[in-house]
Amino acid sequence: MARRLRLGMVGGGIGGFFGAAHRIAARIDDRFELVAAALSSSPERAKESAAQVNIASYRSYVDFEEMAQQEAARSDGIEAVGIVLPNHLHYSAARAFVEAGIHVMCEKPLATSLADAEALATLVAKQSVVFAVAYTNAGFAMVREARRLVKAGAIGKVRVVQVEFPQEWLASDVESTGNKQATWRTDPLRSGRAGSLGDIGTHAFHLAEYVSGQHVESVAAQLSTFVNGRRVDDDVQMLLQFEDGAKGMLWASQVAIGHSNGLALRVYGDEGSLSWSVVEPNLLKLARPGEVRIIERGSASTATPVRLPPGHPEGFLEALAQLYADFADAISAYKKGTPQSASFLPGIADGVRGMRFIEAALKSTAANASMQKLD
Amino acid sequence: MARRLRLGMVGGGIGGFFGAAHRIAARIDDRFELVAAALSSSPERAKESAAQVNIASYRSYVDFEEMAQQEAARSDGIEAVGIVLPNHLHYSAARAFVEAGIHVMCEKPLATSLADAEALATLVAKQSVVFAVAYTNAGFAMVREARRLVKAGAIGKVRVVQVEFPQEWLASDVESTGNKQATWRTDPLRSGRAGSLGDIGTHAFHLAEYVSGQHVESVAAQLSTFVNGRRVDDDVQMLLQFEDGAKGMLWASQVAIGHSNGLALRVYGDEGSLSWSVVEPNLLKLARPGEVRIIERGSASTATPVRLPPGHPEGFLEALAQLYADFADAISAYKKGTPQSASFLPGIADGVRGMRFIEAALKSTAANASMQKLD
Amino acid sequence: MARRLRLGMVGGGIGGFFGAAHRIAARIDDRFELVAAALSSSPERAKESAAQVNIASYRSYVDFEEMAQQEAARSDGIEAVGIVLPNHLHYSAARAFVEAGIHVMCEKPLATSLADAEALATLVAKQSVVFAVAYTNAGFAMVREARRLVKAGAIGKVRVVQVEFPQEWLASDVESTGNKQATWRTDPLRSGRAGSLGDIGTHAFHLAEYVSGQHVESVAAQLSTFVNGRRVDDDVQMLLQFEDGAKGMLWASQVAIGHSNGLALRVYGDEGSLSWSVVEPNLLKLARPGEVRIIERGSASTATPVRLPPGHPEGFLEALAQLYADFADAISAYKKGTPQSASFLPGIADGVRGMRFIEAALKSTAANASMQKLD
Amino acid sequence: MARRLRLGMVGGGIGGFFGAAHRIAARIDDRFELVAAALSSSPERAKESAAQVNIASYRSYVDFEEMAQQEAARSDGIEAVGIVLPNHLHYSAARAFVEAGIHVMCEKPLATSLADAEALATLVAKQSVVFAVAYTNAGFAMVREARRLVKAGAIGKVRVVQVEFPQEWLASDVESTGNKQATWRTDPLRSGRAGSLGDIGTHAFHLAEYVSGQHVESVAAQLSTFVNGRRVDDDVQMLLQFEDGAKGMLWASQVAIGHSNGLALRVYGDEGSLSWSVVEPNLLKLARPGEVRIIERGSASTATPVRLPPGHPEGFLEALAQLYADFADAISAYKKGTPQSASFLPGIADGVRGMRFIEAALKSTAANASMQKLD
Repeated sequence: MARRLRLGMVGGGIGGFFGAAHRIAARIDDRFELVAAALSSSPERAKESAAQVNIASYRSYVDFEEMAQQEAARSDGIEAVGIVLPNHLHYSAARAFVEAGIHVMCEKPLATSLADAEALATLVAKQSVVFAVAYTNAGFAMVREARRLVKAGAIGKVRVVQVEFPQEWLASDVESTGNKQATWRTDPLRSGRAGSLGDIGTHAFHLAEYVSGQHVESVAAQLSTFVNGRRVDDDVQMLLQFEDGAKGMLWASQVAIGHSNGLALRVYGDEGSLSWSVVEPNLLKLARPGEVRIIERGSASTATPVRLPPGHPEGFLEALAQLYADFADAISAYKKGTPQSASFLPGIADGVRGMRFIEAALKSTAANASMQKLD
Repeated sequence: MARRLRLGMVGGGIGGFFGAAHRIAARIDDRFELVAAALSSSPERAKESAAQVNIASYRSYVDFEEMAQQEAARSDGIEAVGIVLPNHLHYSAARAFVEAGIHVMCEKPLATSLADAEALATLVAKQSVVFAVAYTNAGFAMVREARRLVKAGAIGKVRVVQVEFPQEWLASDVESTGNKQATWRTDPLRSGRAGSLGDIGTHAFHLAEYVSGQHVESVAAQLSTFVNGRRVDDDVQMLLQFEDGAKGMLWASQVAIGHSNGLALRVYGDEGSLSWSVVEPNLLKLARPGEVRIIERGSASTATPVRLPPGHPEGFLEALAQLYADFADAISAYKKGTPQSASFLPGIADGVRGMRFIEAALKSTAANASMQKLD
Repeated sequence: MARRLRLGMVGGGIGGFFGAAHRIAARIDDRFELVAAALSSSPERAKESAAQVNIASYRSYVDFEEMAQQEAARSDGIEAVGIVLPNHLHYSAARAFVEAGIHVMCEKPLATSLADAEALATLVAKQSVVFAVAYTNAGFAMVREARRLVKAGAIGKVRVVQVEFPQEWLASDVESTGNKQATWRTDPLRSGRAGSLGDIGTHAFHLAEYVSGQHVESVAAQLSTFVNGRRVDDDVQMLLQFEDGAKGMLWASQVAIGHSNGLALRVYGDEGSLSWSVVEPNLLKLARPGEVRIIERGSASTATPVRLPPGHPEGFLEALAQLYADFADAISAYKKGTPQSASFLPGIADGVRGMRFIEAALKSTAANASMQKLD
Repeated sequence: MARRLRLGMVGGGIGGFFGAAHRIAARIDDRFELVAAALSSSPERAKESAAQVNIASYRSYVDFEEMAQQEAARSDGIEAVGIVLPNHLHYSAARAFVEAGIHVMCEKPLATSLADAEALATLVAKQSVVFAVAYTNAGFAMVREARRLVKAGAIGKVRVVQVEFPQEWLASDVESTGNKQATWRTDPLRSGRAGSLGDIGTHAFHLAEYVSGQHVESVAAQLSTFVNGRRVDDDVQMLLQFEDGAKGMLWASQVAIGHSNGLALRVYGDEGSLSWSVVEPNLLKLARPGEVRIIERGSASTATPVRLPPGHPEGFLEALAQLYADFADAISAYKKGTPQSASFLPGIADGVRGMRFIEAALKSTAANASMQKLD
């Protein structure tokens, strides 16, 4: 194994869950070394957080613009950066690092407007850096196995796609009780106009396209805000029409009591179906008429590489680690001048599609759930 | 226990599945005695079928009109009749018996048009007979327990209703291969304009309203026909808007490989949720934030009467038997001059609503899935 | 279909669960007509119960000996009888009817001693009546499918058999609180020396042999009484050695909180395994190395006849009904002089094996769980 | 966070699964830095493996004795070591590092004889190093939550313990086909006299004691070798008697087709029960009479710390990482002169009990499954 890539991190100071998850994930396959960070916009907290994660104080920044410039100027500067900020800062942070020629792993959504997302895509193309979007579910081995099976024709021509992402944590007005995660995620200024639509709806949308290999063409959406006083949607229900004739439904909810995090996908073709859920992420159900087979991660019939043999469950951190491993591979390929094409790693184009999806859903819900094209 | 009620049966000759199910179900709680029938429109088959089920040959009919008249004229004539015919005959058969003053248990859908259904409702009101519709799922103990719990406020105010009814048996063109059930169910002349919409979509719709206690106000529907050459829809996807602000989704499909008969309902309120599926009909999941409880039919916390103690599973026949027991109770109450009001037994009004639902869905799908009111 | 057989019932008066279950089950497939009974040893209660189930008062008996004699003497006397009494009365009741030449469906266990069971078997052979034992689980379609698959070699040579039957209802001292079922089942005078061993251990034992096709040769048992003051065992744990080299474990418990009635069987061969539980009685899991398949009752790959198509669940009553249907078939065959041999219906030999099992388990537990042969 | 502890690794060269798992796990919580290793006894392979994991070539050893001595002599020598060797080498490797005053995380079983295990325990006590045993399942958050709940009285007094660990990977003679894992694990010279008993039976045994808080006093065991020509047991069935009167059963099998790695534990008390399985490691079932509750890792009712919020599954690597985090804590406490007592970390005493368990089981099976004390 070659030397580790030098990694920076933006956002994710002490107490944040996703920042810690990214740091662990980047370590799991030992392809990165965390050497610089802007962990908080509060100087105090940035410093303390940096010390906690063993980053030298002179490489702990408060401002990501400054970090991008200074690191780009160092001979031992970071080669890649993970961006784990509130949604409204994704765009400017990503922009700063891309402009500095640094490869980026960015949390979704890419931006708070489609225009920004497209501008970023143009910049990425021009700068020719590797740009990955942290659609973590794309890192689960059995999600990839499902994608591989669909592509290999295991279920025939896709007809119906059912995806749902129910959560319960915003079922009451927790943003008024000091829950930090809830506060920024329900604040349109920091989260964007889309609430659960952007936060988890985009995950559901990406998973549906990623596995089914189908592109959504139009959506009819009814967005609801069930909690009084909430400023963004907390429940999203949609009909989907795909380019090649498949039809689908998408439900994302943050008021669905009974589900901590119930992402689930089912894809039905004319010869079979596939079913996966993050609740049992190491399993995949493959049905043919009259028969349902349970396939386990790592078992003989599977073709997707795994770290652990079947029965030794992998989880969320390993999924995110997989994206970091792919990211490292893509950077290596880039350095060798052989950039990858048909990769499993979600990239800038997926991020832009996520924004188109949000725009179309908002437009549809404003027009009494009428069908709207993604464009 | 009083004497058994004299029951007739229309439809359901040898080899039919639902006819046999009705006969068994009517026997289970021993409230009916089958004494007359028109089991087939073929004289040969009617006769043979009647002999098989121990019906005297002189009370085996070929024509249901004749049966209604002759039985009404006998002093020992049938008091009630079960109608298990192809959809397009429900209306005229029901009409014949209602006009003869005979109580009716009718398979759904009531009719093939809303106008017919409403005419029938008017007639039932005039004749003042007991009219039950065989929405069998309403007979499962845990469906009733769910309905009871919602009404008792166990999940608070209803916000979201998710219902689905996936089946796989029409995933390919089986109607061309001689499957009798498939042949009439995909024939618009015998099944009505609605395919899976009428066949199973109405079950899903009824269950959603029955348990949630909410009335659907509008629907946005995309109906598909995935199998080439099929003349009716085989997949139905809908957004639902309820009168009191709840939102929902409904999926009914007969091309969903992997599901033999996967009816499932979830109702989410502001304090909890309930989840039930015919796949595990003896269980109910009741969630509160951070906790999911599994409740078993017959266990201490339940208040719905059962035949068997917990752990001794009841199934489809017991559910249908429950409707027949309710039907017998309703007839008894009618005879005593104390007709029931807030019963658990689906009646003519439910049947009419099912027709409104079909009409609205057809209208919506013809208008690119735009929202349509049920009226 | 020919005329119904005339059936009598002994035991199972008002309020009893198993008596009602037998009556419904005998009705389901319409092969029997209940015409006489001794439903209670209390004249008052016998009379009232008989009226409730539409038995003529002159054919309602208080004493089963008298019933056997009088019915045998009538030209329209019962041809068969169901015995649903407390355990200590099974032997004498069965004896009375067998001596009168009446076919018997008897609840298990056959007797309270092996000697009685063997005497009964001798009598049955001499009288040459049909004698069935109500091992109800043997009536579930997927139990039969499992048995068929094992016999057909689907899992290869059987190596390991794991069976368990956990219940929770005796986890505390309910027999002191007036629970009638608990009172007689924990009374050695009415239930026999074996508590949960006889009540549910025998069901587990029968199921294990019935499906695996293997005969238990020896057992090592530790019986416990966890509830203070209880006079019989309430938890049974055993190692099993089978004649052909398979090994197994059996657990039956009535203090296993969390299980209402968790009977479950797994059979492992050198090529695959089968797994079934009464908790999901319509499913069977068939595993081969690296792959688990879920098979549904009635689906294309199955060969066991069913009443309802897949997805329409059958339950406990249908299982018991299956035994009554088999019983009717056996009686018909007997009448035609062509008695059946390799039937699916549990018979007197199964009942005797159950008693041998009890004896060996009691002997083993008295000798510090040492291995004891069944003989 | 303080600086990372310097860690060495013995065993686990290229291609080995458990070595890689230990290295990742030690990295996850960032408490260790891998700086030295003896990854293989083949000089070539050791060198190549060391390079792959970024260990300087001059700190890559071939012999663990030499490694222990040289590292102990360096001022920057390792403070702790992970031992991931075939079973027969655990004892001598552990001995070498303990003698050198280096803290040890050792794979189970501790040794191939009870005498060796006890000698090691004596040495550990004398040297006063931290000694941890990699009973990985003890690192799962919900296993710890279960242990905590039992201790807190959530299920009352423990009555019955049911543990099983079925695997399928040795169902046929794979050791003859070149499977390296199978070859050493079925070789008595490298694995010890116990096959599946030592390999997975000890895991089941540890889990049962760890969660229930009960100590096994006696066992009755039947060990089988189902695969022809195999030199060790491949199936283990046992009755357990606990010191305080609880009774239990243990099944460990490597011929159980249908299970990749089905470790499952159930503990029944007089007030409730707990159920956990590695198949769904993020869930725990807590039953009280008439009610089963599903508790999720990280949800409000739990008190065990977690890395990720509920619904973001943790897996095997996180469980092992937890043991490494505990190990780091224990070393820190040791350095501060405040060694921990009632820790969640399995230690040398657990390792010794595992050996007593093996000895008693072998003795019992040699005496026709008679009860044998653990001593």
